[in-house]
Amino acid sequence: MSRTRVHNLSISLDGFATGEPQSAEAPFGHAGERLHQWMFATRFWAEGGTAGIDDAFAVRHSDGIGAEIMGANKFGPPGWPDDPDWKGWWGPNPPFHTPTFVLTHHPRPPIEMDGGTTFHFLDATPDEALATAAEAAGGRDVRIGGGATVVRDFVTAGLVDHLHLVQVPIVLGRGVRVWDGLEGLEETYAVEAVSSPSGVTHLTFDKRAS
Amino acid sequence: MSRTRVHNLSISLDGFATGEPQSAEAPFGHAGERLHQWMFATRFWAEGGTAGIDDAFAVRHSDGIGAEIMGANKFGPPGWPDDPDWKGWWGPNPPFHTPTFVLTHHPRPPIEMDGGTTFHFLDATPDEALATAAEAAGGRDVRIGGGATVVRDFVTAGLVDHLHLVQVPIVLGRGVRVWDGLEGLEETYAVEAVSSPSGVTHLTFDKRAS
Repeated sequence: MSRTRVHNLSISLDGFATGEPQSAEAPFGHAGERLHQWMFATRFWAEGGTAGIDDAFAVRHSDGIGAEIMGANKFGPPGWPDDPDWKGWWGPNPPFHTPTFVLTHHPRPPIEMDGGTTFHFLDATPDEALATAAEAAGGRDVRIGGGATVVRDFVTAGLVDHLHLVQVPIVLGRGVRVWDGLEGLEETYAVEAVSSPSGVTHLTFDKRAS
Repeated sequence: MSRTRVHNLSISLDGFATGEPQSAEAPFGHAGERLHQWMFATRFWAEGGTAGIDDAFAVRHSDGIGAEIMGANKFGPPGWPDDPDWKGWWGPNPPFHTPTFVLTHHPRPPIEMDGGTTFHFLDATPDEALATAAEAAGGRDVRIGGGATVVRDFVTAGLVDHLHLVQVPIVLGRGVRVWDGLEGLEETYAVEAVSSPSGVTHLTFDKRAS
């Protein structure tokens, strides 16, 4: 049975997955790269990186994944739908390596990239998008790639089986908060917290059998 | 040098130190006792309790403390200033055992309780209240007892040397959030996070030498 998973979604102590304002120069706003330094330090990200708990969690990002769904705000800065040449932040070989579905009210034709990533553009509800992505995943799992708003939408729609958050020891004060609307999440998910020597705390939410 | 400390302030994953609405029947609103079960399970709280990491943190609540400052919302439910007989939630022998200063716009004469606790009522700024409490503490440390609003006020006034939060794996969705206004806290405090087998994560903020 194909599962729907979120991995490596980094948040501040106060729950913000991105700062503000988001722009082409600052995709995470005033958060800069501070939310993701734990990941850059791992072997998952770069040769010679750490191989402990942070890496053990980070590598699950790709394991068994057959498609990704992401929000418009992850694919590009504000205004990207007006740029017909925009192909994402990630250069010619994006780190997805599967069909990747971008949720947008401004769909365009698919873009085939190197390394197995093809961007598809969907104006769809979470249910519809997941059905399409699961079909493309061919029995493998679907990753909800973020940002926080999209993750929240899929969680509140009851579509997420596994959610991995990484809490970074900074207080951002403003941005997009992942927790909003998720009251009572612990009732449907088994929650586990484990802190890492790097200073981050990994939070996993795994859906209970119903 | 006397220090100002916060201990055992329990918060949800989304940062709420209390739910809502607060009342005589439900001091923590819809959070109930869920934020404090980790503490009730320790030897600090009850004979036969656990003696591991949760207890190690919990006992620091009393160690070296000579006075407490608390907010009006910790001392009683909404409306307590209208009840001349209200003496707090804690019965004849409150768990403070020192002079305890209640910040309120409705001061009343001091109330001497059993076990060394005397409640004093102050209409004062954080700076003024701390000066008064430090005097009463006689060289020992002053604890800021909460709630979250009072802790925030003292932290933003630059008066807190050590802050211990306990993050409980529940999402409350609403209440009083401890993080509001604390952007950049990591710049003036060394932050440490350690998760406990009980499921909570202890966060300590210790002021850096300036």
